[in-house]
Amino acid sequence: MTWVAEVVVQLKPVVNDPQGLVVRDGLRRLGFTGVRAARIGKHVELEVEADSEQDARESVAAMCEKLLCNPVIEDYRIDSVRATAEGRA
Amino acid sequence: MTWVAEVVVQLKPVVNDPQGLVVRDGLRRLGFTGVRAARIGKHVELEVEADSEQDARESVAAMCEKLLCNPVIEDYRIDSVRATAEGRA
Repeated sequence: MTWVAEVVVQLKPVVNDPQGLVVRDGLRRLGFTGVRAARIGKHVELEVEADSEQDARESVAAMCEKLLCNPVIEDYRIDSVRATAEGRA
Repeated sequence: MTWVAEVVVQLKPVVNDPQGLVVRDGLRRLGFTGVRAARIGKHVELEVEADSEQDARESVAAMCEKLLCNPVIEDYRIDSVRATAEGRA
């Protein structure tokens, strides 16, 4: 069965985010003066084979810990795990 | 009032994603043989001042169209807009 997992990898709140500062300043310069802060992270969409949603979720968590997330400066969260249309059929 | 919006900017499904291919192959090489595909996008967390959730949402959509998203190759979606703890007080 195939599952689609959405993962968000973000810098920890205490870590400086120069890319976010540039985006914030760029938005302000474009006239969006109400922007107080911007933080940029990664969004990873993974298609994985697994027997159950629980297995898929555990497998994706292991992937985050081994490759996708640098635990020194980043946090990750698994936003959703859903069966693909094909998986449901 | 301050709102926190979460935006996901992803390559359109028809656009080639070399970064995603590298992540997929890296995961497979690490032993995650069940990975069928990976696609990498951006996750942007914005803190904006606005009078209402509707205003905040419209403002964030305008930011996506003017700066955050390249409409030729990318799609965006606004995942959530919520009042900050400070905003709710």
